[in-house]
Amino acid sequence: MAVRVAVAGASGYAGGEALRLLLGHPGVEIGAVTGNASAGQPLGVLQPHLVPLADRILEATTAEVLGGHDVVFLALPHGQSAAVAEQLGDDVLVVDMGADFRLRNPADWERFYGSPHAGTWPYGLPELPGGRAALEGSKRIAVPGCYPTAVSLALAPAYAADLVEPEAVIVAASGTSGAGKSAKPHLLGSEVMGSMSPYGVGGGHRHTPEMIQNLSAAAGRPVNVSFTPTLAPMSRGILATCTAKARPGITAGDLRAAYEKAYADEPFVHLLPEGRWPATAAVHGSNATQLQVAYDEFAGRVIVISAIDNLTKGTAGGAVQSMNIALGLPEATGLSTIGVAP
Amino acid sequence: MAVRVAVAGASGYAGGEALRLLLGHPGVEIGAVTGNASAGQPLGVLQPHLVPLADRILEATTAEVLGGHDVVFLALPHGQSAAVAEQLGDDVLVVDMGADFRLRNPADWERFYGSPHAGTWPYGLPELPGGRAALEGSKRIAVPGCYPTAVSLALAPAYAADLVEPEAVIVAASGTSGAGKSAKPHLLGSEVMGSMSPYGVGGGHRHTPEMIQNLSAAAGRPVNVSFTPTLAPMSRGILATCTAKARPGITAGDLRAAYEKAYADEPFVHLLPEGRWPATAAVHGSNATQLQVAYDEFAGRVIVISAIDNLTKGTAGGAVQSMNIALGLPEATGLSTIGVAP
Amino acid sequence: MAVRVAVAGASGYAGGEALRLLLGHPGVEIGAVTGNASAGQPLGVLQPHLVPLADRILEATTAEVLGGHDVVFLALPHGQSAAVAEQLGDDVLVVDMGADFRLRNPADWERFYGSPHAGTWPYGLPELPGGRAALEGSKRIAVPGCYPTAVSLALAPAYAADLVEPEAVIVAASGTSGAGKSAKPHLLGSEVMGSMSPYGVGGGHRHTPEMIQNLSAAAGRPVNVSFTPTLAPMSRGILATCTAKARPGITAGDLRAAYEKAYADEPFVHLLPEGRWPATAAVHGSNATQLQVAYDEFAGRVIVISAIDNLTKGTAGGAVQSMNIALGLPEATGLSTIGVAP
Amino acid sequence: MAVRVAVAGASGYAGGEALRLLLGHPGVEIGAVTGNASAGQPLGVLQPHLVPLADRILEATTAEVLGGHDVVFLALPHGQSAAVAEQLGDDVLVVDMGADFRLRNPADWERFYGSPHAGTWPYGLPELPGGRAALEGSKRIAVPGCYPTAVSLALAPAYAADLVEPEAVIVAASGTSGAGKSAKPHLLGSEVMGSMSPYGVGGGHRHTPEMIQNLSAAAGRPVNVSFTPTLAPMSRGILATCTAKARPGITAGDLRAAYEKAYADEPFVHLLPEGRWPATAAVHGSNATQLQVAYDEFAGRVIVISAIDNLTKGTAGGAVQSMNIALGLPEATGLSTIGVAP
Repeated sequence: MAVRVAVAGASGYAGGEALRLLLGHPGVEIGAVTGNASAGQPLGVLQPHLVPLADRILEATTAEVLGGHDVVFLALPHGQSAAVAEQLGDDVLVVDMGADFRLRNPADWERFYGSPHAGTWPYGLPELPGGRAALEGSKRIAVPGCYPTAVSLALAPAYAADLVEPEAVIVAASGTSGAGKSAKPHLLGSEVMGSMSPYGVGGGHRHTPEMIQNLSAAAGRPVNVSFTPTLAPMSRGILATCTAKARPGITAGDLRAAYEKAYADEPFVHLLPEGRWPATAAVHGSNATQLQVAYDEFAGRVIVISAIDNLTKGTAGGAVQSMNIALGLPEATGLSTIGVAP
Repeated sequence: MAVRVAVAGASGYAGGEALRLLLGHPGVEIGAVTGNASAGQPLGVLQPHLVPLADRILEATTAEVLGGHDVVFLALPHGQSAAVAEQLGDDVLVVDMGADFRLRNPADWERFYGSPHAGTWPYGLPELPGGRAALEGSKRIAVPGCYPTAVSLALAPAYAADLVEPEAVIVAASGTSGAGKSAKPHLLGSEVMGSMSPYGVGGGHRHTPEMIQNLSAAAGRPVNVSFTPTLAPMSRGILATCTAKARPGITAGDLRAAYEKAYADEPFVHLLPEGRWPATAAVHGSNATQLQVAYDEFAGRVIVISAIDNLTKGTAGGAVQSMNIALGLPEATGLSTIGVAP
Repeated sequence: MAVRVAVAGASGYAGGEALRLLLGHPGVEIGAVTGNASAGQPLGVLQPHLVPLADRILEATTAEVLGGHDVVFLALPHGQSAAVAEQLGDDVLVVDMGADFRLRNPADWERFYGSPHAGTWPYGLPELPGGRAALEGSKRIAVPGCYPTAVSLALAPAYAADLVEPEAVIVAASGTSGAGKSAKPHLLGSEVMGSMSPYGVGGGHRHTPEMIQNLSAAAGRPVNVSFTPTLAPMSRGILATCTAKARPGITAGDLRAAYEKAYADEPFVHLLPEGRWPATAAVHGSNATQLQVAYDEFAGRVIVISAIDNLTKGTAGGAVQSMNIALGLPEATGLSTIGVAP
Repeated sequence: MAVRVAVAGASGYAGGEALRLLLGHPGVEIGAVTGNASAGQPLGVLQPHLVPLADRILEATTAEVLGGHDVVFLALPHGQSAAVAEQLGDDVLVVDMGADFRLRNPADWERFYGSPHAGTWPYGLPELPGGRAALEGSKRIAVPGCYPTAVSLALAPAYAADLVEPEAVIVAASGTSGAGKSAKPHLLGSEVMGSMSPYGVGGGHRHTPEMIQNLSAAAGRPVNVSFTPTLAPMSRGILATCTAKARPGITAGDLRAAYEKAYADEPFVHLLPEGRWPATAAVHGSNATQLQVAYDEFAGRVIVISAIDNLTKGTAGGAVQSMNIALGLPEATGLSTIGVAP
């Protein structure tokens, strides 16, 4: 029998991607779709690519509308999930694609988001050590940020195997959909086409504490992160270049072995054969992570590069994968490793 | 029981798209994948987005390799399909994504392709009048060109309903994948990004006689076509702006009624509600055609605009749709109307 | 002695392009730069590419600020130029890059803009018959729209030489900067990258009456226009595909001769050698128009394709060119035919 | 009296950019333009944006053709400059935009280029300590690589002021023109649009030893570099994110002061005001470098981000700037700090 799923925040990019995937999920029936300013409009105006839902009218995002579903996906602005979630019963699986419940340390939340911490939910990155167990049977899921997904999958094995020093330097490029659908001048097509630019430089990006949390857990001790995000002229995709100084005596073979072992059985993480490198185009629209590792012996650094689709594996695909685990469904149901390329 | 399908020309864009769709087709088992210069290489090098087939080795494109499959998709350069097809038995369904068997008039073929005409096969555009019947049970399918698909779906209802004069003026923009994967300087990213340019102007494009053939059949008398294709800075998608002078006395209501009637039951052609216009992004990776019609009373012209994904509905999706009909499977099996956007 | 030029509306794309060109104009000294909501901000925040003006503070757009300059460029929203212009003395050269004073027929203005007609100024397209004479010594200039520039240069010679029928069918693709810098959701990078879409279909685009005005003047009798604009995934550039039915008996030679004669001495219009086609990349940032003509004998139509930079020749470059003529300076001063490519 | 300049390799991107800039240089007359496979073709076919040179015919790249000019720009494949240069007299200023004469250490050359080292010429990055003096009056100039230009300008002041540890971690994104105009499948528009991908990971990029050379010279002791280049979906531009661990006790103020001092008088290096970040669009087509510095106190790292146009400041603009110095002309002649944006 199909699980009934509501999507709150269906007018934005994360909500739209959740609907795209849920439409292809054989065990799901799509229930309410809600918006805020867009309530009352047909979805076809806001998400013209979702043809089967074109005539659906967005409802208001209220507990009345969302209640009575088996699962509720929240694609709301940061800070708004807690108020909605607490009105939904404990029998409802709530999947929050926002940031509200990702961080364990209230001080981190307060420093980066400037509001009281709402709490911590099981974290929706099954590939991390212990990740699946935390999600099984859970009724609350905090979906990771897109950058932390790409970066944690890239570096966790190296930290878990103690191959690198606890200071990571990360530079990542993201497609513009990561910045959302709010109309801001610097996100206009005229501004972003043909241009690369950084933002949140110097430790200011809100995803940094989440990376630190994940990598420190993998390492079993504090890891520090220097993270610089950049905006790339493409709609989707994250390419994360993740480096750390190698532990003395490490070899390229050690490195490769650790990654082969970590991801041998993972359906959505693909260590590429040697000599091939990830490209975001290859994971466009798919839930796959493609990655490659290198050991630069001259610089003494390990470099791991991962590519994901920020909206799929980085947001809505990770959310569906975690939902599947929480509900006891086969983990890959409704998800694909096949990208849309070229 | 699954149908075994081979894909010849699996290294290119059409072949890759066929494999992408066939991987998601529940009634298909993928058999041989073949190439020419790329034979011997793993598919993962050539089509890194097709993760489940990454370790498949391309074989040579020979009758021995292709024989023994239930269906063979040909994604070969124009003029090469006939030699392969004639070696395949009449019990094999051959789906030719090249141009060889599209045209009925040998003189047209010879003028535009400069070689002897190989013949004419049932034409894989089920939405045209009589289109489905021609495909049912067929063992040979000529998949339409990408531009003729977009243009014929846009204008056939107007001609079938005798609403427009028999001189169509068409300007279409295509993504660069329509030009194939051969490395040519004018197709380099540095050249195409930020640039629009025309080609094949003045009646020279090989898809022109195919449009004339389809529209004349819909009209029941000769239709002439002025067609100008342009290359747009995007990987996929065709936006076709198709216009013709309105018959005297036509109203906007007549026009809309004709299209509503023509496509009311078509799973892959969507006439948009009034006030909304197609965009190629909305059909990215999907088998949908989105279209809208307008009657410009000042200029006395009908304007129909269609958007398709040139590789999906325009090539490999249309091929799978036609294969389904030929095999007696539900027509939409393995195909989607949901685009990957943004 | 340098001419002092003020630019009103310096925060937008047209104003920014005017400043870019004026900075390179040896006879110009840049005076006030003004904005509306952006008044008080340094130009470096709004136009980071204009390094020499980075520390200039935008002033309010008032007659006090603009008065006392030799020339005032207006880059204001449509309908706002008249109120500013009437406060500037007859001794000031006012160059309006908005639409207010382009149309001769008040009824056209009212139908397309919905407000009272402010008047008609000398039209800044020197290459049209009589174009230069109208500008010499003038103190008021209405700069043409970007699409009418591309289209009028493409078709005026054919109409002036009576080679085509008076019904033109035009489809043009524009870069997103033509839609301005106001943040609107459909202009977000995420939406426009990878997508082509039409707008203003069916005669609704405000540039249509301007094209009709220009082409009718060239023909010496009424010309009708069917115009469909499309938005292309690039920041700059217009590619206009302009077609009309050929007059009986016309040859390709007649056509080429007419264009060679029309543009033999024009510094900014380049008829390409036969066999080569315009591309917007080739005119990126330049004041050049590149065009090519073809006669499709099968369809009986003339096809003229032009490429311009919508912000340069299509707006600010045309404005500077017209200013030069009005001031008696050499027409090409401060302008270039060299594009920035690739 | 004008200096006569020849450009060898005029069919490629570096050669085309050199011609674009030299056309705007008031002290230069363009002499021979040469190619290899393209000899005999008009430049208009190969570089359609260079309208004033459209009818120039490319000659063969021989000493006879190049001799007799005051200056010869070489835009040849790596390894081919030496053979040409040695046939040109000592009275000719030879400006090599290839790699042949950049490196001081023959072992570095041999390891990265696999051929005998041709020698070392004065290095064309005037902004480095001692950079201008080395170029004055010189008859041979080795133009830096595009990445080393962006990276060295970003980090040299921090090393010169001893503010950072001698291990730099650099990730840079480049537009596709940096990969040249040879038609290779992975550089097709269909492949690069919508995609970010790395290459030369793990110390393998040929520009790494050049960065090490420059930064070590600035530091006065060995600096090690981990460099990862990535290919971005844009034609032009480099965004370099350059980080190094801060020396103990360093403050953000120390950092900013060092950069303000280093670049206060540099015409082509612009330290942005605090709070603003470089974007490649702002330097499109200009010879400017825009940069910003940050001190991440949590990670203990200095982050410097620079944006250049890889073809202008990164290649041909740097070449013209160095030529000006060598010839005793004002350094900025023919160069601009104004980008073409949006």
